[in-house]
Amino acid sequence: MPASAHIIALDVLDVRFPTSEQLDGSDAMNPEPDYSAAYVVLRTDAGDGHEGHALAFTTGRGNDIQANAIAALAPFVVGRPVADICDDLGGFARSLIHDPQLRWLGPEKGVIHMATGAVVNAAWDLAAKRAEKPVWRLLGEMSPEQLVDQVDFRWLSDALTPADALEILRRAEPGRQERIDLLLERGYPAYTTSPGWLGYSDEKLTRLAREAVADGFAQIKLKVGATLEDDIRRMRTAREAVGDGVRIAVDANQRWDVQPAIDWMRRLAPYDPYWIEEPTSPDDILGHAAVRSALRPIKVATGEHVANRVMFKQLLQAGAVDIVQIDSARVGGINENIAILLLAAKFGVPVCPHAGGVGLCEMVQHLSMFDFVAVSGTMTDRVIEYVDHLHEHFVDPVRIVDGRYVAPTAPGLSAQMHPDSLKRYAYPDGPVWADRV
Amino acid sequence: MPASAHIIALDVLDVRFPTSEQLDGSDAMNPEPDYSAAYVVLRTDAGDGHEGHALAFTTGRGNDIQANAIAALAPFVVGRPVADICDDLGGFARSLIHDPQLRWLGPEKGVIHMATGAVVNAAWDLAAKRAEKPVWRLLGEMSPEQLVDQVDFRWLSDALTPADALEILRRAEPGRQERIDLLLERGYPAYTTSPGWLGYSDEKLTRLAREAVADGFAQIKLKVGATLEDDIRRMRTAREAVGDGVRIAVDANQRWDVQPAIDWMRRLAPYDPYWIEEPTSPDDILGHAAVRSALRPIKVATGEHVANRVMFKQLLQAGAVDIVQIDSARVGGINENIAILLLAAKFGVPVCPHAGGVGLCEMVQHLSMFDFVAVSGTMTDRVIEYVDHLHEHFVDPVRIVDGRYVAPTAPGLSAQMHPDSLKRYAYPDGPVWADRV
Repeated sequence: MPASAHIIALDVLDVRFPTSEQLDGSDAMNPEPDYSAAYVVLRTDAGDGHEGHALAFTTGRGNDIQANAIAALAPFVVGRPVADICDDLGGFARSLIHDPQLRWLGPEKGVIHMATGAVVNAAWDLAAKRAEKPVWRLLGEMSPEQLVDQVDFRWLSDALTPADALEILRRAEPGRQERIDLLLERGYPAYTTSPGWLGYSDEKLTRLAREAVADGFAQIKLKVGATLEDDIRRMRTAREAVGDGVRIAVDANQRWDVQPAIDWMRRLAPYDPYWIEEPTSPDDILGHAAVRSALRPIKVATGEHVANRVMFKQLLQAGAVDIVQIDSARVGGINENIAILLLAAKFGVPVCPHAGGVGLCEMVQHLSMFDFVAVSGTMTDRVIEYVDHLHEHFVDPVRIVDGRYVAPTAPGLSAQMHPDSLKRYAYPDGPVWADRV
Repeated sequence: MPASAHIIALDVLDVRFPTSEQLDGSDAMNPEPDYSAAYVVLRTDAGDGHEGHALAFTTGRGNDIQANAIAALAPFVVGRPVADICDDLGGFARSLIHDPQLRWLGPEKGVIHMATGAVVNAAWDLAAKRAEKPVWRLLGEMSPEQLVDQVDFRWLSDALTPADALEILRRAEPGRQERIDLLLERGYPAYTTSPGWLGYSDEKLTRLAREAVADGFAQIKLKVGATLEDDIRRMRTAREAVGDGVRIAVDANQRWDVQPAIDWMRRLAPYDPYWIEEPTSPDDILGHAAVRSALRPIKVATGEHVANRVMFKQLLQAGAVDIVQIDSARVGGINENIAILLLAAKFGVPVCPHAGGVGLCEMVQHLSMFDFVAVSGTMTDRVIEYVDHLHEHFVDPVRIVDGRYVAPTAPGLSAQMHPDSLKRYAYPDGPVWADRV
């Protein structure tokens, strides 16, 4: 490696999968998604063969907007010493997020924030590969002080101070090694959304739900919110298929206003839904609090569209959620997700990540495993979403055994795709799209 | 005009002004902004010479990201009949906002939402030019039913239903013509931010503050949040310059966490600040509520970075703001701003628009004037921000007389720039930038 290696390129690829043709991934607000990745590669002149790979997830149209936004961050990254970035990922994330001109585009939300998150995550992938560790383990072996340095506490101090964070992390220090060993031995529990897409017939729902239970899953999820009578029938069908011992979560993907969410869910209540996910606008903190209060003991979950740590802070302060659903590609990268994990731990609320997309399972497993090792210290009532498509495109795909994520051991963030997949699904010129567009 | 005219082009220009060289516009979070416009033009084959012009505002870097996002909306607009769009602007706005794939990029926030807003506003400009009316008057002469049709009530019904909106608009129907006449005769009150930028010396602050009072302004605004001792001195300087009869608002541009906002403002309280603007994160509804509760009777204002109607709804539900600061270029266009004006009216909270930028004064004056004519029906405690630069680039610039906005009479939204300005300030190839970049 040269005495001082530098980042020499930030490459961006627009990669799309024509998932809408199968109705995989269809829900009440996303009837025909083409799961897509605005894919980023950081390249260096270190000569060690390591690159940083990560992605922002979108559902098709607009993936070019997202890719353009990532590309526009190149001047903030290219030319910087690799060590400056990889040895101070907290500082690197803050340097992108607090650029005084770019921040107008958010601030810290939407396209610009997801672009930042993708670049920050690519830097973590690079740092972990250089350290020869999977990201969950790189994080899980940092000292509490090092972890606190990763976090941007701006706007959090009324709920979480650096001292609070340090206390949480120190409390979880004893037993880290046992928990690492336990993860390597037994993995982390998953639930599956694969049976429950709206486009599926009742027969397919029944078959997939039974297969899920047979495969060891203790929780499945159904999409709801299109037609009440259909939802009642599908919920009953699913309950009959899996029996009483399996949790069934339902997910409305923001379909309802506040009172309609309450009314609709009361009709599904006889079939014992475990949580209602995204009952209304992801921005509606007070709305979620009203829904939760009306529907107790049905739990309320949200997060995949929650823009940043300030929104999560308020969902927790307002008692609006029972379940925090972090997403690996929505917020400003791993650093902001560490802040969100710490907030959830401070409020004692379990984290059950969102992962329905492409590459989201691969990336987010690292965060839940890190949380188990070094933050909450528990897997109780915690599950990572699992959706069973598109994993074949990844170099180090997630592996599910007996309904649990196997802890990854390969260095990095697991987001790297096969070169052939990147080529075939390139939009609009790759062979998969050339005929379709 | 052809029997059926169509939109034939959506042109986008990246236009930037090197305002950072003068420290105009400098504040605690935006130390060196280059006020910029991602400028959009809708062209038709109607043969009537009318185009739709509008812009998304940014502060420099990232204006290319914003322009790219607007350009990506062209397939949703180009080829559509002009009448379909101009006769159903509510439907047009919803068709962009609820595209099931694009919405992942927000939803309804940040770059994609500002892009939508720019295109929707350009359509309003086109519609108003075709109707030969300024936008405020086009809106102010619509029936309550027509206005309700402009609004997307999704996620609002726990605070504002279509029936509520109709009631508000019908209540304001009597007297519309008198209020139109009053606007044409006397205009709408303004306040000025021009004295208070952080980069200015005390002497310049004193001189500009006195000039503001002499020019007829009854309110000025100071940027605060960089250094407490400086702020105390500047606030005292400003108060001494203007005397007790003039309101002095202060603006922290999101600089503080919740408790620091309270502590800092208590030190400025002896100089009677009228409102504190953006004391903390624009996403922090509960934080604003805490600040307001602690600082009463100092008012709390926010809005220029508030992403959408759902966030404004909650600011009002939570009693978090005394002043709603709409922005013409942040949310999804005029349609969403109508929703926000209705929400403010429902909660009885005055609207005092943000307009520090380029083109923002020009556009937002139409919304306040419409509000006076057809929604709130009052100007009491309502003022539109005025910043005195860059107006020379507009075909129909705002005019201020005796501290009041003169009601525009030219058809459209007033956002159209001179062709020569668009050329000279084009980034990065226009002559103004060619030397600098």
